[in-house]
Amino acid sequence: MGDEVYVGILGKGTVGSAFRKLIEERADMVAEVAGRRPKVTGVLSSKDGDFDEILAASDVIVELIGGIDPAREYVTRALREGRHVVTANKQLIAHHGQELVAAAREGGGQFRFEAAVAGAIPVIRVVQESLGAIPIEKVFGIVNGTTNYILTEMARAGLSYEEALKQAQNLGYAEADPTEDVGGADAAAKMAILARLAFGAPVGLEEVPYEGIEQIKPDDLAYAKELGLSLKLLGVAERIGDEEISVRVFPCFLYPGHPLAPIEGPFNAVMVEAPAITEITMSGPGAGGIETASAVLGDVVSVIGGGSPLFEENSKLRIAKDVEMAFYLHLEVEDKPGVLAKIAEILGDNEVSVRSVVQRGSGDDAQLIMVMHPVSERRFDAALKRIGKLRFLRSPPRSIRVIEEEFN
Amino acid sequence: MGDEVYVGILGKGTVGSAFRKLIEERADMVAEVAGRRPKVTGVLSSKDGDFDEILAASDVIVELIGGIDPAREYVTRALREGRHVVTANKQLIAHHGQELVAAAREGGGQFRFEAAVAGAIPVIRVVQESLGAIPIEKVFGIVNGTTNYILTEMARAGLSYEEALKQAQNLGYAEADPTEDVGGADAAAKMAILARLAFGAPVGLEEVPYEGIEQIKPDDLAYAKELGLSLKLLGVAERIGDEEISVRVFPCFLYPGHPLAPIEGPFNAVMVEAPAITEITMSGPGAGGIETASAVLGDVVSVIGGGSPLFEENSKLRIAKDVEMAFYLHLEVEDKPGVLAKIAEILGDNEVSVRSVVQRGSGDDAQLIMVMHPVSERRFDAALKRIGKLRFLRSPPRSIRVIEEEFN
Repeated sequence: MGDEVYVGILGKGTVGSAFRKLIEERADMVAEVAGRRPKVTGVLSSKDGDFDEILAASDVIVELIGGIDPAREYVTRALREGRHVVTANKQLIAHHGQELVAAAREGGGQFRFEAAVAGAIPVIRVVQESLGAIPIEKVFGIVNGTTNYILTEMARAGLSYEEALKQAQNLGYAEADPTEDVGGADAAAKMAILARLAFGAPVGLEEVPYEGIEQIKPDDLAYAKELGLSLKLLGVAERIGDEEISVRVFPCFLYPGHPLAPIEGPFNAVMVEAPAITEITMSGPGAGGIETASAVLGDVVSVIGGGSPLFEENSKLRIAKDVEMAFYLHLEVEDKPGVLAKIAEILGDNEVSVRSVVQRGSGDDAQLIMVMHPVSERRFDAALKRIGKLRFLRSPPRSIRVIEEEFN
Repeated sequence: MGDEVYVGILGKGTVGSAFRKLIEERADMVAEVAGRRPKVTGVLSSKDGDFDEILAASDVIVELIGGIDPAREYVTRALREGRHVVTANKQLIAHHGQELVAAAREGGGQFRFEAAVAGAIPVIRVVQESLGAIPIEKVFGIVNGTTNYILTEMARAGLSYEEALKQAQNLGYAEADPTEDVGGADAAAKMAILARLAFGAPVGLEEVPYEGIEQIKPDDLAYAKELGLSLKLLGVAERIGDEEISVRVFPCFLYPGHPLAPIEGPFNAVMVEAPAITEITMSGPGAGGIETASAVLGDVVSVIGGGSPLFEENSKLRIAKDVEMAFYLHLEVEDKPGVLAKIAEILGDNEVSVRSVVQRGSGDDAQLIMVMHPVSERRFDAALKRIGKLRFLRSPPRSIRVIEEEFN
């Protein structure tokens, strides 16, 4: 724990700034999980800092400049000189991945780029490590949050493409120049990276045909809505027979029941299909500044930890004695006056508040089905214990917890 | 690539046998992705093999015996003597995780156990590495495939618990003695492991209250169906305020829209919530023999690769020139006789088969909306090109792909 590891940051934009803040805030926790404490040696921007000085002082270089030049030169030099490099730069990897991996091999450091694809969803790690030796049939999904947000709003609110884009820009989900995202090039670069990892085949960016969403009209979405279909911009990389693969990006209707159909707003989701594992689906927020910075930090932790994750007791957290939950309560009761009143009284005594109650059947088949508002489990248990002793119960009460939150 | 890495396997049951077959089949691919070719040094069963001989001959020990004894002694010795150990043994980790991590630190090898929780879903890796330095609020999900299969069948087919259990046993989703699964103990052990990793807090198995599904009655599920609710056996590990955590397993109703609600059959799904990443959801098949063996192989690849994943072009796969897709076609046409016939003729010439066609509007607002059966993209493009030239079109044709498969 005494050791420090020196981290140089290239880039001072949204992600660069978010990462610097995050690694400084979380330095103690990194030290706990990875065994060494990260210390930032310097931050390079187009105005400030000197790359050679930062390189000389660092064990790990985090490249968050974006684009090809000068990122390519910096990353290549850092890797050749034996530094570990973590980057979120999908263009760089899609165009020059092979060359950078060769540089990493030459220098002996690690080269990681989880943040380049699908934000905080660890799809690179899964394809490269978890399934590293399993033959993958297909990797596909929603890998661009901007377009998914736009399509979601067009479908939900009936907006035109232009209106939805404007809204995405106002909310920071789309850039001032959205061409790369809405035209499909961003998703194509990500799919080229995933295809190379999944199939070990050299996939050039120019070999990935892509379409965007600029041509989608509100009436396409109206049609989809009528049939219960969802419209998504999908990236697909799949094996075709024994000798071919196909890598493409296109807008696409999905039938209800498809795991990608409910993915809405700026979220991403990726599915991996392989005979050995059927399919794995992973979803989460797309690449905002903080999500990307988190994914970069995950790679930095892996690099520092040397691939040997720990299992540390590093906190003072105690097990809680009580929690709040909502409950469903099923009672088989005798069908006579005063039953409900007595039960309500016991619940009230224990401060358990009833959200809904239904009476079913009658005579020997009378049942009370109640749902409670969230309540301390202890208080509910106390009430349940008293209810269980009531003589007019025909069988022991049955309770099941209820999770009320809805997600979107 | 010339190097070999020696792998000793402890256990010859379902998972042990599946793993041995898998690692031998995939040895070349492991060599490609991890840089060294695995060679099995021996397989220990209760009848055959000698642990000391296997240990002496191996770099990596894969423990698939299950249970505490003698697995605990074997794993401890292997770790102390500097071997990497990969295991799928959740009981061993839940009971003796700390002691084994200490042994790994002493010996300097890696200790990995992705397969112990949620089958092929890389939840350990995500919690431990991707989010290693991010404060996690909550980890929860469906971590037992047996119970999820039983609950799914009770809800779908109206079976009693006993009938659904019998069916699960016949299909190999439940063991002859299902107590550990249906009573919740299996899920509790997994949640104890996840809670320790997520919160770094010492969570003993005895501190995880759990309930199973034996008490669930068909009329609970009938009630759920009426309200659109799903019933799942959930494991929850969450932070409660600044000083407490709660780790529990219980059956629970979920409202529609909850990401875990659509998880059916023997599948598992885990959600991780953290402020920096909102939430990540991962789902996939639970722990069958081949899924567990795949997860174990993923850990073996990580261990062999030394945490430095490669990015190799190792295949001869080519990009396909054509693929099959279904298409939606939107045409704004003049409202006059012969229009549909002409379009149908062009589609027929190109062997594009129409699945459905709807005509909307009339006069200046006439539209044809067609959905095709899956067809070669080249042939559809050829047809589209000819259709685009028809004089009675009021605007260029719009086509969008359709994915027809439904998932379950």
